[in-house]
Amino acid sequence: MFSSVLLVACGNNNENSSSSSSGTQVISQTNSNYYQGVIKDGHYLTSKSRGVSVQQNDNQLNLKGFENGLLGISKQHFPTDDYILQEGQYINTDTVEDWLGRKSKNNPDGLNPAGKDTKEPLYLQQMDEQDFMTEDHNALKIKGMTIGLGLNSIYYYRKEAYGAVYQKKLNDSDIIKQGKDIANNILQRLRKNKQLKNIPIVFALYKQAPNDSLVGGNFFASSVNNGSSIKSSNWKSLNIKNYVLPAESTKGVNNNDEDSFENFKNQIQKFFPNLSGVTAQAHYVDNSLRGMHINITTQFYGQSEIISFTQYVENMAEKYLPNNIPIDIQVSSTEGMQSFLSRKTGDKNFYTHVFTSY
Amino acid sequence: MFSSVLLVACGNNNENSSSSSSGTQVISQTNSNYYQGVIKDGHYLTSKSRGVSVQQNDNQLNLKGFENGLLGISKQHFPTDDYILQEGQYINTDTVEDWLGRKSKNNPDGLNPAGKDTKEPLYLQQMDEQDFMTEDHNALKIKGMTIGLGLNSIYYYRKEAYGAVYQKKLNDSDIIKQGKDIANNILQRLRKNKQLKNIPIVFALYKQAPNDSLVGGNFFASSVNNGSSIKSSNWKSLNIKNYVLPAESTKGVNNNDEDSFENFKNQIQKFFPNLSGVTAQAHYVDNSLRGMHINITTQFYGQSEIISFTQYVENMAEKYLPNNIPIDIQVSSTEGMQSFLSRKTGDKNFYTHVFTSY
Repeated sequence: MFSSVLLVACGNNNENSSSSSSGTQVISQTNSNYYQGVIKDGHYLTSKSRGVSVQQNDNQLNLKGFENGLLGISKQHFPTDDYILQEGQYINTDTVEDWLGRKSKNNPDGLNPAGKDTKEPLYLQQMDEQDFMTEDHNALKIKGMTIGLGLNSIYYYRKEAYGAVYQKKLNDSDIIKQGKDIANNILQRLRKNKQLKNIPIVFALYKQAPNDSLVGGNFFASSVNNGSSIKSSNWKSLNIKNYVLPAESTKGVNNNDEDSFENFKNQIQKFFPNLSGVTAQAHYVDNSLRGMHINITTQFYGQSEIISFTQYVENMAEKYLPNNIPIDIQVSSTEGMQSFLSRKTGDKNFYTHVFTSY
Repeated sequence: MFSSVLLVACGNNNENSSSSSSGTQVISQTNSNYYQGVIKDGHYLTSKSRGVSVQQNDNQLNLKGFENGLLGISKQHFPTDDYILQEGQYINTDTVEDWLGRKSKNNPDGLNPAGKDTKEPLYLQQMDEQDFMTEDHNALKIKGMTIGLGLNSIYYYRKEAYGAVYQKKLNDSDIIKQGKDIANNILQRLRKNKQLKNIPIVFALYKQAPNDSLVGGNFFASSVNNGSSIKSSNWKSLNIKNYVLPAESTKGVNNNDEDSFENFKNQIQKFFPNLSGVTAQAHYVDNSLRGMHINITTQFYGQSEIISFTQYVENMAEKYLPNNIPIDIQVSSTEGMQSFLSRKTGDKNFYTHVFTSY
């Protein structure tokens, strides 16, 4: 894809990349579903606000789900074959930390409401910047940006340091309003940077899952702001929902999907004399099932058990689980992942792998 | 493959298997490299000595490596397309525990030398029975058996309960002699069972790795005993060795293989500003490299890092690692496995999978 001297795909030109430690390179794409990444001065170009998101999330599923979902939204606007993904280089750690704070005299840039922690909820919990680049005259040039904003659905707070944690459920209408206002604010700030003045900037709003959830939250709105617009508008609602199965409440989960999963689960739990735990994350877009991640946990006493169990899981998955959606299945024991199965959309059979050791 | 009423492949006839809870069924083979397993009365037919091997191994790599290696040896004598694997049903927990013990007045069947723990080393550390079945008149019938014997290379012992652990390195010639004598003893005992009187019984001797090893031990001899023979003979030496890379001592590891791994490792460790740990298990048969399992551990701060790193690992693996051998690569953080790559013998590209969450 690139032929310049500076921009070499690592897979194709390693004599170069291994000896030179300066300049910019891109990582060869090995799967059309992934973006190429950027290597600078010999290392991967990490985000300027690296690590802040990790600290901001008591539930790490809100971090993984947020980032994966944001990549999915970005791909719709900046296709993986046309753009290179650069981890956020325009908003650094200090800035993100200021923006995630409350607005106050000491922190005029805070994007959360002014006020006391015990009275006024914090809405903005995490943010992520993704830069989309193309090659231009032997250098990478920014051509688009996506900003994800993670908003609390529940505000967790303490009345005193180390005291009990209280929680307050936030209204959807308040979450939406706050999210859009914050996006507007950020858009105006970003447009002040000469390089970002005329590029499309996409905002995506994410409602964080509760801290005890076994699945992340969901994106509920996005807005594409073409070059020079300084007020985010054209908000589009996104109907994306993630559920855990077996479901505590069946609201939102299609009955057929739930039955399929229950049948699969019952078959799996029959396999061993000892019981297996079987849970799933179910991913819905516009009320239809678009993917499942299944976790199976059980105790194994040997490799033959793992191999037989994995083959059995594949048979049952092909028989009971919904077709035409991507499905990942992880089989774990207390010692970690023992095998895994994965089927892409459109495939009939699962890829299976049993982890072994010499 | 099976068409009888009792023996139904689970994948093909589940109305049957899910309603009936009696009779014997086989698990459909999903990969020609795996044996079909046995379901009995609705559950997987687990080994009669289930769990004993787990207790016997302070280093669980000696368990995984032993079982995987034994399956490999079994496949040479009982091909996966012709035989069904039944976990050991002839030697039960009590018997295995007696046999693994020392010979004494109270335990005349003990296969380890009589004597005091402080004077006389224990040789036999673990054993595994694999039964190979075919269908015969609507039932499974045993047609062959493999017995693996795990022998200590280092004898660990205490002089008093809860005291310091001492170790004594055992001589190869003693290990070989003990292993063959024990196999002979077991063969004579098994032949007393009418069902096992006339089947081929394969013995395989395994030298356990030290407790602190990052790779399991290795099989060093095998013997095929055709129907009715009651003295194991025709011992064949096996030249199978497993090493850890980077190697403490380069003895046994081919220089080119070591250089390939070193180059790969150096490229991986350049990727992040933070350092990655890169180790490998290298599997040699007749002094030539037959497979590698690579473990990469590093800290990730987000999904984009994991995706880019995984693509980079694939590029570097295809460039630097030896061709024409199976290679598995696991990429982990303190939170568990984040991605994995696998290439089969003969394949050019790696299968890659990044573990995600909704």
